[in-house]
Amino acid sequence: MSDPLFRRLTLIGIGLIGSSLARVVRREGLAGEIVISTRSPQTLARAEELALGDRYCLDAAEAVEGADLVILCVPVGASAAVAKWIAPALAPGAIVTDVGSTKASVVAQMQPHLPANVHFIPGHPIAGTEYSGPDAGFAALFENRWCILTPVEGTDPAAQEKLSAFWRGCGSNIDVMDPDHHDLVLAITSHLPHIIAYNIVGTADDLQTVTKSEVIKYSASGFRDFTRLAASDPTMWRDVCLHNKDAILEMLSRFSEDLSAVQRAIRWGDGQALFDLFTRTRGIRRSIIEAGQETDEPDFGRHHGEA
Amino acid sequence: MSDPLFRRLTLIGIGLIGSSLARVVRREGLAGEIVISTRSPQTLARAEELALGDRYCLDAAEAVEGADLVILCVPVGASAAVAKWIAPALAPGAIVTDVGSTKASVVAQMQPHLPANVHFIPGHPIAGTEYSGPDAGFAALFENRWCILTPVEGTDPAAQEKLSAFWRGCGSNIDVMDPDHHDLVLAITSHLPHIIAYNIVGTADDLQTVTKSEVIKYSASGFRDFTRLAASDPTMWRDVCLHNKDAILEMLSRFSEDLSAVQRAIRWGDGQALFDLFTRTRGIRRSIIEAGQETDEPDFGRHHGEA
Repeated sequence: MSDPLFRRLTLIGIGLIGSSLARVVRREGLAGEIVISTRSPQTLARAEELALGDRYCLDAAEAVEGADLVILCVPVGASAAVAKWIAPALAPGAIVTDVGSTKASVVAQMQPHLPANVHFIPGHPIAGTEYSGPDAGFAALFENRWCILTPVEGTDPAAQEKLSAFWRGCGSNIDVMDPDHHDLVLAITSHLPHIIAYNIVGTADDLQTVTKSEVIKYSASGFRDFTRLAASDPTMWRDVCLHNKDAILEMLSRFSEDLSAVQRAIRWGDGQALFDLFTRTRGIRRSIIEAGQETDEPDFGRHHGEA
Repeated sequence: MSDPLFRRLTLIGIGLIGSSLARVVRREGLAGEIVISTRSPQTLARAEELALGDRYCLDAAEAVEGADLVILCVPVGASAAVAKWIAPALAPGAIVTDVGSTKASVVAQMQPHLPANVHFIPGHPIAGTEYSGPDAGFAALFENRWCILTPVEGTDPAAQEKLSAFWRGCGSNIDVMDPDHHDLVLAITSHLPHIIAYNIVGTADDLQTVTKSEVIKYSASGFRDFTRLAASDPTMWRDVCLHNKDAILEMLSRFSEDLSAVQRAIRWGDGQALFDLFTRTRGIRRSIIEAGQETDEPDFGRHHGEA
């Protein structure tokens, strides 16, 4: 067997993303040793029961000692605290990365604390499900998904290539962009959809003219699609909202403006405007399917009786 | 073999719902004969190629002759025209129903044209996919889904029970409610989700700072969930918006109010308000799964690599 890409990988945080990484790294032999750290003793014990790693530490500083790859898999709001904690213990030459959904804030939070002799290369695998925690992860999560790296100025090309090789080993394709552009792209492709989903589920929950049991019974008519995103981890999404504020507010404004136009078309019976909007949106789904980012099975391939 | 429930079923419109009905009715032997009518010669020819019925007529009036069950499966905006067309040809005692997504408008459009000697019982099966046309249908579409009947005053209980038995034969559960309440319930569970989905896809399509190819590549981070609803039939959804205007405008107002509150929480960094909203929405998905209206597989059971 060839040498693993990294001698020792430390995962800080062992939720959906961290535990999926642990599983795929093990399966693909991408690291000689996997060290897992998380602040909750219960979660750490569960990771050990699941045999996700080789060593388990509550102390993140202890966990990163001697690691040549450190991946933060924590809500983005915790990035500064973790960086501060681990900084004194990091091995020279180590690659430090993360999986957070916002990047400019992660750079601002972490960079000031990290020593100059480590390679800090922020990253974001575009993958996930609505489930959370160490039990929710699975090795195939990153397969055929994009992982975006947002290297800061002066990043060592060799270190960046090594991290790219790691993510390719996990099944991902690599893109590189600047942190601010990442945050704008993700504001529309991920953050706005989650906020809208949370919001519509909240609106439905508040109704009094329509009961909650009616919303549940008839949810197959469309509503249930939104409940998946709205079941995502609340801490993670609170942090995303707080740490990508400007881009999210910009996308929310555009969305609301557009929605006002639709509302006006409905009020004034402008069928043509509605038809035009409802027609052009079809093509985008087709493109997403063709790009291999979505199934073309009807209804996401949900099971319908015995069909 | 026992006698079928109906001697002759006429389906007017043979899209996703009509063609699914044709398939399940055939499989379950719910009608002795299936007559199919649709205004497009191409679609009718396709229905015949698929062998969905026993007879095929472009003329809806001719198609309903001698039928003891007539089901309109057309966009709701076409209800008045079809009712007017078929009215003189309806057999006394026939049950006339529909599958439209709005009910008060369908009652208002159809009832004035229909003769007093037929049983008009509006209906709405809460089932569908994002695909349209006679090829898109499948027999299991209605299985374990609700079908809502909205009978008008003075409806014959025996006719209503016979229609209920028909839908149960298709695999559905039956609910009965008044047309206005139906329209309110569906405005939140179906119409608002579709409008929001169309709108967010439109907003993304209009961006210039983020390219369309970026939206497509990174859509797995949330956006793609919305594209499914936004790929639904534009004519059907234009008609829904025009024919359930008041309830939809009411739900849109509530949604926008709630979204403004979220926007404000993001702007002012009110993490607690965000966390509270993001937490209470989780329970609704759990209830929908428990009610058998949704899969509990992560990510709608979408395929992730080999997992």
